Amino acid sequence: MIKAGIVGGTGYTGVELLRILARHPEVELQAITSRSEAGQAVADMFPNLRGRVDLVFSEPDLGRLSECDVVFFATPNGIAMTMVPELIKAGVRVIDLAADFRLKDASLWQKWYGMEHACPNLLEEAVYGLVEINRGQIQEARLVANPGCYPTAVQLGFLPLIEEGLIDPTSLIADAKSGVSGAGRKASVGTLLCEASESFKAYGVPGHRHLPEIMQGLQYATGEQIGLTFVPHLTPMIRGIHATLYGRLTESGRDLQMIYTNKYSGEHFVDVMPAGAHPETRSVRGSNMVRLAVHQPQDGDVVVILAVIDNLVKGAAGQAVQNMNVMFGFDELDGLNDIAVIP
Amino acid sequence: MIKAGIVGGTGYTGVELLRILARHPEVELQAITSRSEAGQAVADMFPNLRGRVDLVFSEPDLGRLSECDVVFFATPNGIAMTMVPELIKAGVRVIDLAADFRLKDASLWQKWYGMEHACPNLLEEAVYGLVEINRGQIQEARLVANPGCYPTAVQLGFLPLIEEGLIDPTSLIADAKSGVSGAGRKASVGTLLCEASESFKAYGVPGHRHLPEIMQGLQYATGEQIGLTFVPHLTPMIRGIHATLYGRLTESGRDLQMIYTNKYSGEHFVDVMPAGAHPETRSVRGSNMVRLAVHQPQDGDVVVILAVIDNLVKGAAGQAVQNMNVMFGFDELDGLNDIAVIP
Amino acid sequence: MIKAGIVGGTGYTGVELLRILARHPEVELQAITSRSEAGQAVADMFPNLRGRVDLVFSEPDLGRLSECDVVFFATPNGIAMTMVPELIKAGVRVIDLAADFRLKDASLWQKWYGMEHACPNLLEEAVYGLVEINRGQIQEARLVANPGCYPTAVQLGFLPLIEEGLIDPTSLIADAKSGVSGAGRKASVGTLLCEASESFKAYGVPGHRHLPEIMQGLQYATGEQIGLTFVPHLTPMIRGIHATLYGRLTESGRDLQMIYTNKYSGEHFVDVMPAGAHPETRSVRGSNMVRLAVHQPQDGDVVVILAVIDNLVKGAAGQAVQNMNVMFGFDELDGLNDIAVIP
Amino acid sequence: MIKAGIVGGTGYTGVELLRILARHPEVELQAITSRSEAGQAVADMFPNLRGRVDLVFSEPDLGRLSECDVVFFATPNGIAMTMVPELIKAGVRVIDLAADFRLKDASLWQKWYGMEHACPNLLEEAVYGLVEINRGQIQEARLVANPGCYPTAVQLGFLPLIEEGLIDPTSLIADAKSGVSGAGRKASVGTLLCEASESFKAYGVPGHRHLPEIMQGLQYATGEQIGLTFVPHLTPMIRGIHATLYGRLTESGRDLQMIYTNKYSGEHFVDVMPAGAHPETRSVRGSNMVRLAVHQPQDGDVVVILAVIDNLVKGAAGQAVQNMNVMFGFDELDGLNDIAVIP
Repeated sequence: MIKAGIVGGTGYTGVELLRILARHPEVELQAITSRSEAGQAVADMFPNLRGRVDLVFSEPDLGRLSECDVVFFATPNGIAMTMVPELIKAGVRVIDLAADFRLKDASLWQKWYGMEHACPNLLEEAVYGLVEINRGQIQEARLVANPGCYPTAVQLGFLPLIEEGLIDPTSLIADAKSGVSGAGRKASVGTLLCEASESFKAYGVPGHRHLPEIMQGLQYATGEQIGLTFVPHLTPMIRGIHATLYGRLTESGRDLQMIYTNKYSGEHFVDVMPAGAHPETRSVRGSNMVRLAVHQPQDGDVVVILAVIDNLVKGAAGQAVQNMNVMFGFDELDGLNDIAVIP
Repeated sequence: MIKAGIVGGTGYTGVELLRILARHPEVELQAITSRSEAGQAVADMFPNLRGRVDLVFSEPDLGRLSECDVVFFATPNGIAMTMVPELIKAGVRVIDLAADFRLKDASLWQKWYGMEHACPNLLEEAVYGLVEINRGQIQEARLVANPGCYPTAVQLGFLPLIEEGLIDPTSLIADAKSGVSGAGRKASVGTLLCEASESFKAYGVPGHRHLPEIMQGLQYATGEQIGLTFVPHLTPMIRGIHATLYGRLTESGRDLQMIYTNKYSGEHFVDVMPAGAHPETRSVRGSNMVRLAVHQPQDGDVVVILAVIDNLVKGAAGQAVQNMNVMFGFDELDGLNDIAVIP
Repeated sequence: MIKAGIVGGTGYTGVELLRILARHPEVELQAITSRSEAGQAVADMFPNLRGRVDLVFSEPDLGRLSECDVVFFATPNGIAMTMVPELIKAGVRVIDLAADFRLKDASLWQKWYGMEHACPNLLEEAVYGLVEINRGQIQEARLVANPGCYPTAVQLGFLPLIEEGLIDPTSLIADAKSGVSGAGRKASVGTLLCEASESFKAYGVPGHRHLPEIMQGLQYATGEQIGLTFVPHLTPMIRGIHATLYGRLTESGRDLQMIYTNKYSGEHFVDVMPAGAHPETRSVRGSNMVRLAVHQPQDGDVVVILAVIDNLVKGAAGQAVQNMNVMFGFDELDGLNDIAVIP
Repeated sequence: MIKAGIVGGTGYTGVELLRILARHPEVELQAITSRSEAGQAVADMFPNLRGRVDLVFSEPDLGRLSECDVVFFATPNGIAMTMVPELIKAGVRVIDLAADFRLKDASLWQKWYGMEHACPNLLEEAVYGLVEINRGQIQEARLVANPGCYPTAVQLGFLPLIEEGLIDPTSLIADAKSGVSGAGRKASVGTLLCEASESFKAYGVPGHRHLPEIMQGLQYATGEQIGLTFVPHLTPMIRGIHATLYGRLTESGRDLQMIYTNKYSGEHFVDVMPAGAHPETRSVRGSNMVRLAVHQPQDGDVVVILAVIDNLVKGAAGQAVQNMNVMFGFDELDGLNDIAVIP
């Protein structure tokens, strides 16, 4: 049993961490902090946790957090980087679900996130927590940068072909669709039910913060320059990301289905569906699975990859726990054994 | 480990049984039958089960089912009653999720279900599987009639006051709202997304089949004649039942909150919420919980009880597994430990 | 052509007024005010109005508003009462969509709305704008209190039986369900898509502000004391109210269907559906219609009335325009001729 | 006043035609046919039409239809082609909302629609009813092939750049998302609320019938070979299409915004939104508008066009009425003046 703390537990990734960790066989929840809700019982805010989590939100306190073996940051961007150095110094291992440690280049981070980085020296050490790609490094990591939701789906979808050099890396298109929970649990007009349901729209077409994160990951895999057009959309549902990925094949006659099957054989959480399949987001809702399908319409030179995840699980809290399992040598499935609820 | 079979596994209660039983520590899934889908892999129809359930739908076969310790019927009304006698004779214990064995009076059953009962002699023996009320009888039962979804919510809501004689049993009103999954997974125009979403309506006001079931249960508890107006409504969501129950108090000054707390103390799956609470259906989605709240608006003589369940779990498959756990002496929580997914 | 102004046009009743008035043959939109959005084009906030409304939000200015023939208040409660006296003095006729002038009793208003009334002397003069009941008074009114959304559905549903003395006025139950737009267009966590969709709950059971408004209206009709239990619920959809009304019949053998048909014969906006019908909210979505159905389940002594409206049209902006049409002698259908969009 | 008939009025395009034509100042509804519902009042099936349309569904009868000035076919594919030749001979003008006359090449039609064409000789004469492109020919047409929903959005989005030769026509990508009403009003499991809501998926990636229709239209405009990857998706909402279009610019430095503004100046139903805009489908719901926005992310060589329509209006019934208005010399706005209902 290890002791875990959560900083910033009032958002959707926070409650999802609680839901998962409350049933994790190797974890004891030690503290969950929220400056605004300090003193309130967690289960009063999230009634699904009544009888399952008896924690009370507490003020973020480095002393108490330092007693944890692992601390998760489920905070807005820019918070973790102010607390992580001290926690690491105290021997605590950290998993940051925000974006603070995802980009290796501090100036690029500053450009996209609009603030100076508080501890750029940790960027090099931080391990990008896409387990299927970086499992080895994660085992040893003191600091894991949990990937963004879109980047998880887009990278796992593109990487098999990128690594094989089978698609032109300079003309990639990622048309991604997210449920509204990706916008978080903050009061705002744009994500009211009356604004976001029964409607569909793109957003951030001029530039979205997940663009440099995806490009960094793809570039690392291929070594070549990446050209990527990334268009996210808001979909009238709560959970789920569907990434529709387009690449131009540079070679013909290869068995694309087998490339994906081989790449992800042995992975618990990646399901390569049969040729011709169209994965639906609900097939992974509430679970840590990624489901993928590869298409080559009319045998042309455009490959279409479909990838679905639950943005709050494999795209956030579930992947964070998967990282923790790897870091502490637990069974990678611990706490992540749920089956998607259909219907 | 016991061997379980499911007859009629292609509907929503069927897939929900599979989801629950696939992770049940004491159960081995032996067979799942579907006349129409025989030969198809279960996971091809329900992709959430890929990698978790490798069964193939088979023709319903009494021989094979007779090798099970328990058989669940997730069939339309009128099927179980044609197969149950033989199964029981073969020593199989049966849990019927349909309505075949819920009413004790065969002529009443015939009136509401429009067909003659095939084995009225079993009606007396069949135990009504509302565990919180009938736990003792269920332990010994060969045949359990799993309660309907509305009856579960309405009875658990009304019974504490009915049993205490605190409300007039002749003027009860149950205004109940259900998600669309209550209508099942059959092709029909009325439950298309384009017909049922963004709209709300009552149905069955002249008379719904769950009315006699509820009245039978309440009458059994009080011994007196029951007068109940029951109005079900279709709500634009997938899962969940919300019952709003109205009764006229016959006595004043009693601590209603305590009556509920006492009645359900020790029950794993009934959560009496604090005074003033308004339970929401999502707080039980995907879980076997019932959440209840009691109100006495403006300290008048009308009591309002709010009860929420997931119609497919506590209102169907979850309660069926809870019954099985009781019948076979397992921990009542086995397989039913999920926390509702919020958001 | 008359000149119309709208105070507080950034909420859902505001945009609905604009949608209706933009096509009204007798109205010229003169001004729409919003302190927070002054200077912004209306069509930038509501893109459905692009090319149809070229107004810009302006600061609320009594001078400019005084040039209007009619001013609508689509403001939060407590604003209209501070501006109405001066407007009326200037000869402007006022329709208040908020609650400021709905209750005749200033102390009752203060109790439920938590503030002192700024012009209690106008309460007597204000005409309650339920056109089907008060058409004559509305024609002459200087100040119309537009009814609340729930009160519109509940009163139109109960009144035919109340007026005929056919139900016990002391044991009425109104179980009402509203779409989320009833909560308005303000940033709040509770009405986020991720909080309010795929869930159903009651709220305000201890007491809701529409309770005294309904009771006042029913009491006025019968002269007797009213006993009403009113339970509102939040439904996961944008628009629509469904009121399920329960009354105890004091007389048997009367043709309830005919009572409703007669009461509302000649009313453009009230549709008494055939016996046995279950009106759905989408059948009135975007329109000013009320649809009603009357049931007497199992010929018992409980009558069930089903009433549906669009909370933003007949429950707010549409009814306000209907009031204006009556006040200025226009065709009552002017601007209100839309057919509900199905699906 | 002209006389209009509708063949096949029980689907979503049928009821939408009725909603629009019921208020059209120049049209008298003469007949609406449905083999399966003959004898039933239209308003019994679609309660929104109560009091507005008093027609009864009738058997399709060429004699009665021949008395119409215009007949709309809102039938499944393959029906219109069996009746149109005789109607045209009788002097009736025809607007087919199905696909029977959209493709000029009968063998291509047969390949994609799986049946032989019944009157290939009419394919040449049939005018493709994309009014903004073919207004002149439509005025004189005896037979108009009303465009498909996806093709309307995709062509209006791509055409300005295609016609100007500004994008490479061989590497086009159209990632399109549709509400569920695009699948029609037939009983089927896949479009049940419980299957299609709270989920998102692609479908038809290997090949969708709208692909050849779009390619034909684009090829006609450019004269060059078209290479198009078209991926449709099912979105959990009732109405709306959002097309996200990607093209590779062949020239830099051109003012793309102005190209769109110029192309569609004078068009009532095309709204080119300001640079940087993200149109949402609800801004056109229930209306005949198209809203477009053009983006050039990071000033790269990929142009992204966003186009939204209501699939049942501009994508079906509204465009059909727009065609009729052009054919008969009516004001193009007649009957199509609705403002989208927000929220």
